[in-house]
Parts: sequence; structure tokens; C-alpha cells
Amino acid sequence: MTKRVAIIGAGPSGLAQLRAFQSAAEKGTEIPEIVCFEKQSNWGGLWNYTWRTGVDENGEPVHGSMYRYLWSNGPKEGLEFADYSFEEHFGKQIASYPPRAVLFDYIEGRVLKANVRDWIRFSSVIRWVEYDPDADDFTVTVHNLASDHVYKERFDHVICASGHFSSPNVPEYEGFSTFNGRIVHAHDFRDAREFAGKDVLVVGASYSAEDIGSQCWKYGANSITSCYRSAPMGFAWPDNWEEKQGLVRVDGKTVFFADGSSKDFDAIILCTGYRHYFPFLPDDLRLKTANRLATADLYKGVVWAHNPKLFYLGMQDQWFTFNMFDAQAWWVRDVILGRIALPEDKQVMMADVAEREAREEASDDVKYAIKYQADYVKELVAETDYPSFDIDGACEAFFEWKKHKVEDIMGFRNNSYKSVITGTMAPKHHTPWKEALDDSMEAYLQN
Amino acid sequence: MTKRVAIIGAGPSGLAQLRAFQSAAEKGTEIPEIVCFEKQSNWGGLWNYTWRTGVDENGEPVHGSMYRYLWSNGPKEGLEFADYSFEEHFGKQIASYPPRAVLFDYIEGRVLKANVRDWIRFSSVIRWVEYDPDADDFTVTVHNLASDHVYKERFDHVICASGHFSSPNVPEYEGFSTFNGRIVHAHDFRDAREFAGKDVLVVGASYSAEDIGSQCWKYGANSITSCYRSAPMGFAWPDNWEEKQGLVRVDGKTVFFADGSSKDFDAIILCTGYRHYFPFLPDDLRLKTANRLATADLYKGVVWAHNPKLFYLGMQDQWFTFNMFDAQAWWVRDVILGRIALPEDKQVMMADVAEREAREEASDDVKYAIKYQADYVKELVAETDYPSFDIDGACEAFFEWKKHKVEDIMGFRNNSYKSVITGTMAPKHHTPWKEALDDSMEAYLQN
Repeated sequence: MTKRVAIIGAGPSGLAQLRAFQSAAEKGTEIPEIVCFEKQSNWGGLWNYTWRTGVDENGEPVHGSMYRYLWSNGPKEGLEFADYSFEEHFGKQIASYPPRAVLFDYIEGRVLKANVRDWIRFSSVIRWVEYDPDADDFTVTVHNLASDHVYKERFDHVICASGHFSSPNVPEYEGFSTFNGRIVHAHDFRDAREFAGKDVLVVGASYSAEDIGSQCWKYGANSITSCYRSAPMGFAWPDNWEEKQGLVRVDGKTVFFADGSSKDFDAIILCTGYRHYFPFLPDDLRLKTANRLATADLYKGVVWAHNPKLFYLGMQDQWFTFNMFDAQAWWVRDVILGRIALPEDKQVMMADVAEREAREEASDDVKYAIKYQADYVKELVAETDYPSFDIDGACEAFFEWKKHKVEDIMGFRNNSYKSVITGTMAPKHHTPWKEALDDSMEAYLQN
Repeated sequence: MTKRVAIIGAGPSGLAQLRAFQSAAEKGTEIPEIVCFEKQSNWGGLWNYTWRTGVDENGEPVHGSMYRYLWSNGPKEGLEFADYSFEEHFGKQIASYPPRAVLFDYIEGRVLKANVRDWIRFSSVIRWVEYDPDADDFTVTVHNLASDHVYKERFDHVICASGHFSSPNVPEYEGFSTFNGRIVHAHDFRDAREFAGKDVLVVGASYSAEDIGSQCWKYGANSITSCYRSAPMGFAWPDNWEEKQGLVRVDGKTVFFADGSSKDFDAIILCTGYRHYFPFLPDDLRLKTANRLATADLYKGVVWAHNPKLFYLGMQDQWFTFNMFDAQAWWVRDVILGRIALPEDKQVMMADVAEREAREEASDDVKYAIKYQADYVKELVAETDYPSFDIDGACEAFFEWKKHKVEDIMGFRNNSYKSVITGTMAPKHHTPWKEALDDSMEAYLQN
């Protein structure tokens, strides 16, 4: 085995890939040389919190979109690793919506146990990747930010695991250039306490808008207004939260809405999503896709159909997260190990993509979408030695979660669910979310 | 003439280079094909204001460090183009410290007159540059952000004019990750009105600290504290502005200083400078230098001694700005046109660099530094057909400016100086700076 594999990114996806290879090695399989390149100085990807915004200490765009006081916005029972349960990591079952520090610790625990940190080159940003058809390999140009040295290495495979919730989608509205307050994208939102006493406008109607608005509300904003283009979030909001349709324009501190109303704001927080962003990839290798469950051009959701020596992990919109990355990583590993054969014919791979797209588009129903992605995870898991787990049970946790949000948007995190890995019921958390201002791991684990 | 020249950046330096070539063409000289690549969708570099912070609409680091209400912090008489006076542009003499919009209009006026906009490819970011010793040329990899298409082109020369006040230097202090307010670098500072009523800490003791602190003060901050490492700015600050030595650590909203005192702040603005940042250049082409008057490795301050087909413009720390960029651009043009011969021996070029460094280091005096850079501008201007102008007169304007700042830090912009290009005295501005809240061009030109 003389193959060399480059993994771009040591976040949840990249770490899943390291664990997948280590797991095979542990069972006696000869594995390729694995080199994981991570721009940040530590692993964890988005879960590696930084106070920095904009560009980092090296001038590179800050990867992190994580903010203080974030608790998981879905139950941990939907993302638990099948090969490393929360109980194994914490020595006990814990409550269902852990704050960031707890999830970071959990992710880290598995890869510390797997002892793969040496496979990662930290503070190393990929400047460019190029495929050489003669040698049938990739030349990867790397900037070691610590030594300020640029070098090239060749790899047989490249696995792009750099995420797609890092590069903000930032729309412009009339009057933004003269707004007399702060305009910030969710990507650069850090501490909700900054907005205590403020009138905050949250633009968007998806998870960031819901959660960042809720954070600002919890930590003392004077009022929250959220505005949507097509449909309101429609939860039973607190009295000082209103939903408005359509931001039209801004004048000074005043924002005008489609219904003709207006209101003065101190801050506008753009919860307008993220973009798939690969500044290190040429046209023939660069994924261009919408944020959806069936990504463009990826056979089985992971193989770049136009050059099947290149793989992408985690590029889908996500109900399933950590466990889906695992399913993908194990599957990609088995392609590289020669255990899974890819179709010789590119048209067969593209037909697979088209079938997934058509099936996704068949319904707008949320339960359908969750089941769709569950089926995808099941499909991949069945084809590798990744431990099978009760994926339907995870779906049930998602369905319950959706119901709990409708019942009480500021209280849904007070519920608990049953682990589909260990079968244990999570304890009820000791403090209701809206009163739990300390998000430290110590505080959370005091159950 | 079949040469091709790539210019990276269409800010003041890059535009000076375009005008330099156009000026030669206008006089009948055959010039190379010039292609200027600009990441932004318009020209002007830092003077092209954007409300955006962090990364831009394409996911690229925002170039602009410009903020609203900025007025030139030095007299315009020190930066006037020798071939395009303020009087020619505005049809009259104008006051000495123009706001951003006025300076943008002036910069733009010259290149509109020169009709060089078609030489620029906008929304085009350079991903990578590589020198090919066999062909003795450069391969430039360009990402057209508008069409999301990456392509390569070859050039005989590359002129790097991408500036060095764009990539922030952002230090970390103990407690930053848990500060309960906003931490922002000067690069991402936009509208001082955001800080009205706030207690603001400005970290740094150079031009950004002085000017951003002054902006916040002017637009109603409750208090300004500026903190320095080595020496205070030492101006006669208003009553609600104090200078402190040494930020030690942060706890919650409280900042502790070296003298043992502490104070609560709403915001920390890091005026801690910028870094030379060239993510598109390999080791053999990448300038690494401190922000100083004599840059490392640049013969005559512009020629990359290790490969003299590569040039850098404007990489020095700056007293002289637009007119120095002109002097450099005309000189580089004449090297490319074969009018100026470079030393064959790299050691001769490196000796030139060493001599400039030693001469800079000979004194810490500010007047010495200004004269040093004036001598550099004189040296270059004398070797090309750039119109000679009264550079000593420009120095006098700088000396006066320094004196006026000591006399009244919040009033120095009320002074006026004599143009060294046209000999005309600037009018006194109609409104004292601290009362002039409208920074529009219309308002400024009402003299």
C-alpha cells in the first residue's frame, strides 16, 4: 500500500474520515498514508470556538460560525456516533441538548481515543489543488501558516471535508451602506450579551434566525424582530418578538418592511445562510451545489462524478450530522481501500445523482425529508462495517423535537430522548434552557 | 511589443500603474498589453467604501478598511498627483482634509480621463502566481467571481499592487474569548454612531487609534480610553478621553491595565495595524517585510530582487501616498519599457536594499523620516518623465500638519495649506471638523 490520501479539514467530517481509516487499521487492514490539512491551530471545525471574526490571526477567513452560549438545536440522540456513545465518553448518560463545549469534548474524545492527532497538519491552509491526468494524481499546494512556508505534495486521492457553513451568504439591501448601527452576518455573531437592551432585527427564517434571535432574547435584548421572505417561522414567540415579511429598505436606523411598517433598530443580524466555498479548487474539481439533501454531481453523495478520485464529505443540507459524516467517511474509505467498486461509467454515477435529486424533490414535507436522509444514511451504513444503529429511532427523536419546538420554542430544550445507540433515556436537564445562562461543560454535566 | 503585464489590484497603486502606461502610450510609445485584476467590483482599493465586513459577497476577505465619516488624516497637499491637480479635477481649489468620497472622486477622475477602465478585469481574484524559469514568464491563476470560472494566463511581468492595509493584525489578550461586548479590529470598523453612548477602548497608539477614537468621540461615545504598549500618543485629548499603558487582561466586561487600574467597556477596537498578506504567492515570489520605509528585498523599493520580473508597488509605510505610488509606477513602467536598466547582479540590488535600511534606521526623528521618504520620491521622479513637483514643499505641509495636531487634535483639520502643484492656497473649510457631521462630497465642496 503506497497510496497517499489528503483530507482537507479536521472538523467533524474530516475527523470522521480519520477515525474510519484508523478503525480499519485497528482491525489489521493496511491503510494508505493519510495527511489531514487543517487551517486552524486545533481540530473540531465549527465546534472549535473562536472570538475572532472576519479574518483570523493569519489573515485567512475565520472558519468558525459558532457563538457563545450555543446549545445544540437538535437532540443529541440524532447525531450520536454509533461507535462511541455519549455514555462511553462521559461515563454517564447526559441531557439531550448539550452546549458547544460539551459537544466539542465529545467529538474530541473519539479521536483522542483513536490517537490520530499526528495525522493532522495544523495551521495549514490549502492554496490550490490540481489534478494531473498523466500521473493520475493530485498536486496539493499547502501554506504552512506557522512557518510561513508554501510547499507542494502529491496525493492519489483528495477528500474535501472543509464544510459548508463557514462562508456567509450576505445579501445587500437598499440603505445598508448608510445604516447607523451594526450589520453583522450570523457567521460573525459571537456574544448575545452585546445586544442586551437593543432592538435587534434578525433577517431570515431558518435555524440561525431562530436560534440567534432566541439567544438575543434570552440574554436581554429589548426586542426581536425577525423578517422572512416566503414564510414565517410561526412559533409562539415571546411578547417582545414579532415576525415581519420582507425587508424592503433601510434609512438611517429605520428599517422598512413590505407591509408598509417601519421600526428603528440598533443592529441587523443577517441569518441568510452560507455558501459552498472552495477557493482552492479549479473548475474541473469544484463542487457547485445548492444547500440541499441531494447535492449536485456527487455519486452516492460523496464521489465527485467528474473525477472519482476526489471525494466530498458532508456537503448536504443536514438533519443527520455526525453520524451521516461517519456513514460517508466509512464508505469513502472502503472505495479507497478497494472494498467498494465505483461504476466505470460516469453516466451511471450521474444517473444516481439525478435519481436522488428527483426523490428529494418529490415532497416538501419535513418528515419526508428527515426520512429521506435517514434512508441515505442507512444505505451507506449497510455497505460498510460502520456499526448499524437504530436510524428509525433517530428519526423519531427528530419528529419529537419538531413537535416540542411547536409546543414551546423557548422550552423545547428542556425535553429528553432515548439514545438509539445505548437505549438509555437521557436525564431531564437540571435547569430550564431560558434560565441556564452558564453554558460551561461543568455546569451542564451537573445532572 | 508582445509583452504582457499583469497588475494585481486597481487601488491607488494599481491605478497609478495604469495611468503610467497610458501616459506613455499617449506620447506615442508602444506599450505592452496590460491586464489589471481587481477583486472588487469597482476600482479605488481602500477608497472604495463598503459596508461589508469580514468576507465579501463572494466569500473573499473584504479588502476595505475604510469607515464612514473618514476625512483624510493628512493634508491633501502631501498627496496631490503631479499630473492631475485638485483644481483640475474640481474646477477650483478645495479645503485641505477631504472626506473619503471627495478623495475617491479625485482618484477616479484621473483614470476616467485616462480612459483605462477597460484594462481592468473586475471581480477577479488571483488564486495563484507561479514563475516558469524555462519560459521566463508567470502563470497567473484567476478566479472570475462573477462567472465562477477559474482560468490561467501567462504574463512576462507581474506587478503586485494589492496594498498592505487590508489584512488586519489581530493580537489576542487573556479573556478575549469571554469578553461580554464587541471586539472589532479597525479593519471592520464602519460607523462611529454605533458607539454613541458607549465606553470604548481603543487598543493602539498609531493613526488608526487616533482617528477611530476621534471618530467615536465626535459621534457621541460616552468615553474613549486608548491604550499603548510603548508610548502614549500624548495629544491634548478631550476630558472624556484618557490614555492608559498596557492592556493586561479582560474579565467579563472589565479590562485591566498595567498600572493596576481597570474599567468596564462596551467595545474593544483593535487598532493594531495590518500585515503584508499575499496568499496567492509562493515562497520564491512572496514579500515578507515589516511595515517600514525601507522594505525588505525590493530594489529601489519596487523590484523583487530575487526575480526582477516581479514588482511591488506601495509596500512601504507611508508619509507620501498617491504621489509616491506615481513615482514608483512611472519607474516600474520604464523598467518594463526598457528605458531603465536593472543591475545584472542580484548582490547590487540587495546592497541597495541594505543601504536604504541602514539610512532609515539612522534616526528615529519624524522629520527625518518624512524627509527620507521625500528623498526616495525625488530619486524616482528624477529618473522618469513623471512631472517634477515641489517635494520639499510637500514636506513643509507635513511639518505644519504635525504641529497643528499637537496644537489641537480635534481641530487640526480646520487648517489649510498651499498646493505644491498649482501654488494655490487651499480655502479654510466652512465648518470645523468636529461640528461637520455630514461627510458627503456635496457638503464638503460648498466652500
